Amino acid sequence: MIFKEEKVFKDPVHKYIYVQDQLIWDLINTKEFQRLRRIRQLGTSFFTFHGAEHSRFSHSLGVYEITRKIISGFERAAYEDWPASERLLSLCAALLHDVGHGPFSHSIEKVFKVMHEDWSCRIILGDTEVNEVLRRVSPDFPQKVANVICKTYEKPIVVGLVSSQLDADRMDYLLRDAFFTGVNYGTFDIDRILRVVRPYQGKIVVKESGMHAVEDYLTSRYQMYWQVYFHPVTRSSEIILRKIFLRARDLHQQGYSFGFFLHPLDDLLANTLTVEDYLRLDESFIQTTFMQWTMEKDPILADLCRRFLERKLFKYVTLDQVDEEAVNELKSLLDSLGADSTYYVEMDFPTDQPYDVYQPGGSKEKTTPIYLLTEKQELVEISHVSEIVRSISGVHKGKVQLFYPADLLAKHRAAVTPSVAKLLGS
Amino acid sequence: MIFKEEKVFKDPVHKYIYVQDQLIWDLINTKEFQRLRRIRQLGTSFFTFHGAEHSRFSHSLGVYEITRKIISGFERAAYEDWPASERLLSLCAALLHDVGHGPFSHSIEKVFKVMHEDWSCRIILGDTEVNEVLRRVSPDFPQKVANVICKTYEKPIVVGLVSSQLDADRMDYLLRDAFFTGVNYGTFDIDRILRVVRPYQGKIVVKESGMHAVEDYLTSRYQMYWQVYFHPVTRSSEIILRKIFLRARDLHQQGYSFGFFLHPLDDLLANTLTVEDYLRLDESFIQTTFMQWTMEKDPILADLCRRFLERKLFKYVTLDQVDEEAVNELKSLLDSLGADSTYYVEMDFPTDQPYDVYQPGGSKEKTTPIYLLTEKQELVEISHVSEIVRSISGVHKGKVQLFYPADLLAKHRAAVTPSVAKLLGS
Amino acid sequence: MIFKEEKVFKDPVHKYIYVQDQLIWDLINTKEFQRLRRIRQLGTSFFTFHGAEHSRFSHSLGVYEITRKIISGFERAAYEDWPASERLLSLCAALLHDVGHGPFSHSIEKVFKVMHEDWSCRIILGDTEVNEVLRRVSPDFPQKVANVICKTYEKPIVVGLVSSQLDADRMDYLLRDAFFTGVNYGTFDIDRILRVVRPYQGKIVVKESGMHAVEDYLTSRYQMYWQVYFHPVTRSSEIILRKIFLRARDLHQQGYSFGFFLHPLDDLLANTLTVEDYLRLDESFIQTTFMQWTMEKDPILADLCRRFLERKLFKYVTLDQVDEEAVNELKSLLDSLGADSTYYVEMDFPTDQPYDVYQPGGSKEKTTPIYLLTEKQELVEISHVSEIVRSISGVHKGKVQLFYPADLLAKHRAAVTPSVAKLLGS
Amino acid sequence: MIFKEEKVFKDPVHKYIYVQDQLIWDLINTKEFQRLRRIRQLGTSFFTFHGAEHSRFSHSLGVYEITRKIISGFERAAYEDWPASERLLSLCAALLHDVGHGPFSHSIEKVFKVMHEDWSCRIILGDTEVNEVLRRVSPDFPQKVANVICKTYEKPIVVGLVSSQLDADRMDYLLRDAFFTGVNYGTFDIDRILRVVRPYQGKIVVKESGMHAVEDYLTSRYQMYWQVYFHPVTRSSEIILRKIFLRARDLHQQGYSFGFFLHPLDDLLANTLTVEDYLRLDESFIQTTFMQWTMEKDPILADLCRRFLERKLFKYVTLDQVDEEAVNELKSLLDSLGADSTYYVEMDFPTDQPYDVYQPGGSKEKTTPIYLLTEKQELVEISHVSEIVRSISGVHKGKVQLFYPADLLAKHRAAVTPSVAKLLGS
Repeated sequence: MIFKEEKVFKDPVHKYIYVQDQLIWDLINTKEFQRLRRIRQLGTSFFTFHGAEHSRFSHSLGVYEITRKIISGFERAAYEDWPASERLLSLCAALLHDVGHGPFSHSIEKVFKVMHEDWSCRIILGDTEVNEVLRRVSPDFPQKVANVICKTYEKPIVVGLVSSQLDADRMDYLLRDAFFTGVNYGTFDIDRILRVVRPYQGKIVVKESGMHAVEDYLTSRYQMYWQVYFHPVTRSSEIILRKIFLRARDLHQQGYSFGFFLHPLDDLLANTLTVEDYLRLDESFIQTTFMQWTMEKDPILADLCRRFLERKLFKYVTLDQVDEEAVNELKSLLDSLGADSTYYVEMDFPTDQPYDVYQPGGSKEKTTPIYLLTEKQELVEISHVSEIVRSISGVHKGKVQLFYPADLLAKHRAAVTPSVAKLLGS
Repeated sequence: MIFKEEKVFKDPVHKYIYVQDQLIWDLINTKEFQRLRRIRQLGTSFFTFHGAEHSRFSHSLGVYEITRKIISGFERAAYEDWPASERLLSLCAALLHDVGHGPFSHSIEKVFKVMHEDWSCRIILGDTEVNEVLRRVSPDFPQKVANVICKTYEKPIVVGLVSSQLDADRMDYLLRDAFFTGVNYGTFDIDRILRVVRPYQGKIVVKESGMHAVEDYLTSRYQMYWQVYFHPVTRSSEIILRKIFLRARDLHQQGYSFGFFLHPLDDLLANTLTVEDYLRLDESFIQTTFMQWTMEKDPILADLCRRFLERKLFKYVTLDQVDEEAVNELKSLLDSLGADSTYYVEMDFPTDQPYDVYQPGGSKEKTTPIYLLTEKQELVEISHVSEIVRSISGVHKGKVQLFYPADLLAKHRAAVTPSVAKLLGS
Repeated sequence: MIFKEEKVFKDPVHKYIYVQDQLIWDLINTKEFQRLRRIRQLGTSFFTFHGAEHSRFSHSLGVYEITRKIISGFERAAYEDWPASERLLSLCAALLHDVGHGPFSHSIEKVFKVMHEDWSCRIILGDTEVNEVLRRVSPDFPQKVANVICKTYEKPIVVGLVSSQLDADRMDYLLRDAFFTGVNYGTFDIDRILRVVRPYQGKIVVKESGMHAVEDYLTSRYQMYWQVYFHPVTRSSEIILRKIFLRARDLHQQGYSFGFFLHPLDDLLANTLTVEDYLRLDESFIQTTFMQWTMEKDPILADLCRRFLERKLFKYVTLDQVDEEAVNELKSLLDSLGADSTYYVEMDFPTDQPYDVYQPGGSKEKTTPIYLLTEKQELVEISHVSEIVRSISGVHKGKVQLFYPADLLAKHRAAVTPSVAKLLGS
Repeated sequence: MIFKEEKVFKDPVHKYIYVQDQLIWDLINTKEFQRLRRIRQLGTSFFTFHGAEHSRFSHSLGVYEITRKIISGFERAAYEDWPASERLLSLCAALLHDVGHGPFSHSIEKVFKVMHEDWSCRIILGDTEVNEVLRRVSPDFPQKVANVICKTYEKPIVVGLVSSQLDADRMDYLLRDAFFTGVNYGTFDIDRILRVVRPYQGKIVVKESGMHAVEDYLTSRYQMYWQVYFHPVTRSSEIILRKIFLRARDLHQQGYSFGFFLHPLDDLLANTLTVEDYLRLDESFIQTTFMQWTMEKDPILADLCRRFLERKLFKYVTLDQVDEEAVNELKSLLDSLGADSTYYVEMDFPTDQPYDVYQPGGSKEKTTPIYLLTEKQELVEISHVSEIVRSISGVHKGKVQLFYPADLLAKHRAAVTPSVAKLLGS
């Protein structure tokens, strides 16, 4: 059902988000989608950029809106290469692609080896309100939506709209994260991008004259990586978060009796969550748990939780090269001070990150690269013609950073050996 | 101690927030101030404007920054009427004026008759990190800061910076709420305002040539009231929140045994919170409690909590006049359907709101009005010369709105009497 | 002919301006329309706001674009009250409504009693490229376009799109003038306005729920009047411009032999311009003439032209009441200094201005007021329900300003009598 | 003299421009500086981007303001490497660096081999109001200002503020041109740049942590080159402008008797302008001349002037390689049609342009490169550490474009030979 008069959401990034279909409206009103309001888009980045408190709810609406605009451009121009019947499927996949995100996903995924895409599909296919709404279209519609999200759908052009190197997901989060952090490096001319994308032979491609607009989008992306996503203060808070979960899991396995322990924490720690349990997890639950754990008798768990809530993070030092011996000395020192170095030191290698400003494609990459459509109707992968894109493509080696509790060492200055002092640059 | 090189926070509203004093830096890093990250600036407004997820932490930094800019303008011009020695006190009061806000303050304050200003003072004077930092200045410094916030400080110009009808608090929240909701009615030319304010005879006044800038600020305020602060969807979510607390308190008083009941909920419901307990309350705690209560055996409490978390709000109808009989019929109907009308119906009178777009002053008002300083060095209250300000001053009578569970009635259509149907315009 | 792929202009106010019809494209490329590039939108305002150098060319494109957006909204919703066949006519009238503007229109119109609307119609109906392009539609199409612009077209809804109190013309110039001056008081939420206008019984009306958006638009208008359009420095430069033309006309009538005098200056001064001559006038022509006239032997003409080009404007003093005697004394003084007071003094009454922030309608006003369409499908004129609109409606009495050459008096201080000194507040 | 209360200009790019010194105020009010209002910042770019009608007046104020902000930051931090006594000199040089720009400088400079920097110095040192104001500081002050502008001043740090690869000039024009064209690729975070520049050993350098901000500034620059400065439509209008001057000079040398020929056109064409004459040239003068020349009896001059005023520009075709023979055939064809190919065809090699997105330095470059100041107080040239800067540094080979009168050929289609048709891609 198409609304006679479209419904709108006021959105600070896109001004308005337009809903034209009852189906989309109903999906937004499911409890699984509403839950995304309680999960931040940027995890712990708000500790670095206090404006970054926006949720995955608003991002998901934004991805939907960009997809809607792209498709409606395709429809206006009546491009033959766009399969018009895939409109609703594309919109649903765009809206729901992040519905499986849990609280502080990036940190939790690392510890518990779960993937939010898998959870998105489990939620779409499970006994949920989302599934019920989707089934109204047809019995196999939920499966189709899941296939688009998991990139196994038969028509790659639909997958590419939601997941490619120039997809609605990336376009929205760059603009949105730039807006809320206040870091305006991330803005690019989305109106221009929307004017130059075309469906062509099963792909979303870009008119050659739009090359500079894509360069601008990719350099914005590059800037956001270094200014925001890789910011060491954010890394520090993520590390503390991971250490809390590690400590809790270790304690749980050791049979420690928690003062506060609410279901489904047990299943989370044991990695045996059901869909129903998973949906009960949100960032309120995690923060409330941490607040209670500040009163645990285990000093490490209590201290780490306090650090997280009160933003008493680890400091970091950037290392040109790693002096293993000095690091070991630092660890022993912390161990001796009661700060078990398993939980109080971390070496961070930025190249471990999924640093994919742009991947020109090849045998190993999974994500479709960006193609330009020349006036002669040929496709050229953008890094072949743009030197600036080439310069930011591929893997870039960042520096090693060492995170540690500087406050603790400050209290025991006498115990700090010269080589540790040198390591920490103090 | 003044920093050699100032520290900054990136802020999407003011671009940067500059910290020049160690004292301010230390206050920001206290756990009481960090707690404001877990309390939203606009309570439940995010249900209406999904971007409005910003916290009191960012607002408090903004109020501090505007105050800093005003004072630094006063210092540059070396105005004699500005008591230069009050700089640090003013900055501290600006930063801390909201430190006493609790979760969903506006709703909770109504139910439990607490005032956040009182809590701000209790926190500042209590056994807290904030108090400890302030005491470094002098033993009576915390008391002075509390006096400014409670408007009893001896120098009204310092009070006026933080609390008046053209204060740093209002200026920041208008700009910030406009930014995050995306409702750009709320923006006004703060640079211009900062250029036209002057200290004069114990007041902050405005150069006459700045009258239009103040008009613009007040019409922005007027617009934000009607577009954002009084939005009926936000009212609806606040009503549900209040009803949850009412139900919980009633159950608690009846000796109901809760499935989930975490300290200090007992003290909250009994209105016997200590400072330490109060500081443990945040919106995570409330949301987690509601999530657990969706599984309570009391159907009313469980249903209301579900409504809140899943945004299944009450619908509303605007009434030109109140047909008492029909309202009573509606209540009886809901009672008969198991939806106790004490918790499921609410009449809302917008004039009950603290609707103070602008109060020209007089015997009863507490807030200082806005004075223009003419070229002849006379003070004129702005509504005497501005017709547009006069038109939005004083009390404005809004319409009555009736909130009720439309979904429930839809399921029992046969039971709806004609006069109830007429009342609800259906 | 409709373009397969729309053409665009990059516009800093609307981002892009979309051209979908060959006809519109061809009109833009006529020499009469291109001439608008050499006529500033805000006349001499650039002397006050240096950014205000934008031309009527860009404004005309903007009016076209807003009209296009409104109509395309009407078409999408398929409103029955919109006569779909009038699309192209409306777009042409929107684009061409200002094509008759001459250089520094407001000043020249006052001196020579011409009206730009008349010239617009003469150009549209005359032997011009614009006429030729329009005739391709049908022989009577130019006359129809002229009728819309002169408000005599049979369908008032088409007239109302281009000329009413909420028309595309005003919406564009408010936004555009605000953008280029940097005075952001003038911005309002045009996206919201576009969402709430409706065709209804021969009028463009506003959904009742859009009332606050219209209030915001009207208060922006009010602010722009006082901040920009009535700015005394702009008034001063307009006065000098008028005085130059007065002096030139007087000299011409006296048979003075100009050192520089280019056709069609003669016809301009004699008020006998043909369309062909009129089109040769632009602001370059006027400025070049003034530059040459700085070398005229008539000292008054030469001095006034120098003042204009070098921005040595008259100063002004605001008078609460007019002391006729002192004004006469000032005039005599200037006469005696060789500065003929006919050209060197001016009393300015802002109420002489077409000050029409909003006119609620009535017997005498020519412009359609703004109607709200209630949920019960009734029309209410907005000032009946909005107190803020009422407060800025109708005629507002400004203060009298006296303009005079302060630099000259400064050189002859001894000659200034006490009552003149008092008059000028010095 | 320092103003007690600073004066301001409203500026759409920097919000406000602050004038604190009587000297700066007086310079702005000279007739030579006011003349910059009649010279556009971007020459003929307004034919491509209709918003680009801003003048060198507003740009000059902007350069002054950025310089003022940089210096005031240096003063606040009390850096020892900043020679505080050079403040006023730096501000004057910033304000006046473009005072020698003539109408459509880039085109005219090419034809007449003049340089605007030379004219700036001649104006500063000549018998002008600017010179008179500057001499009030000291008799040798004008020469000092000229030295800074001509880069011969003894203190390179002062020169670097106004002319280097990260100078106030470039920062303002990037932001300003982006603002007025509406091409937002050109925006970068100037607040951040202002926070990371430092005076250091006679240079303005950048704190290492600001590297990404500089990358962002340079990629913005790169984008503006390709989107705006090299836009082929702008190139086309510049070519026509140059051809008009060439034709006029040729006619003048041949003793042609012009119907309209105003002094100092003779000196312009003969390259013998005095300062006084030069100051009389502005874009109004040029446009008025062209308007009159549309009525010249020489058909080539008349046609080219008409093309310019009515924007009937040459079309262009991009060539991968140049088929000399076909080009010659095209020339012969045009010659035979009465369109002398000297004036009607142009090959344009973008690499002929001063394309200096960034030059890393070396023996031949004149402009100081950008240095980063590491934490160890070492200077590193930015392209050594930034791959993205490296990718846009140095000379980039653009494609050849051929400009020709497509409209003329369209009228003589039969005469177009196959190889010409192939050359033009038609």
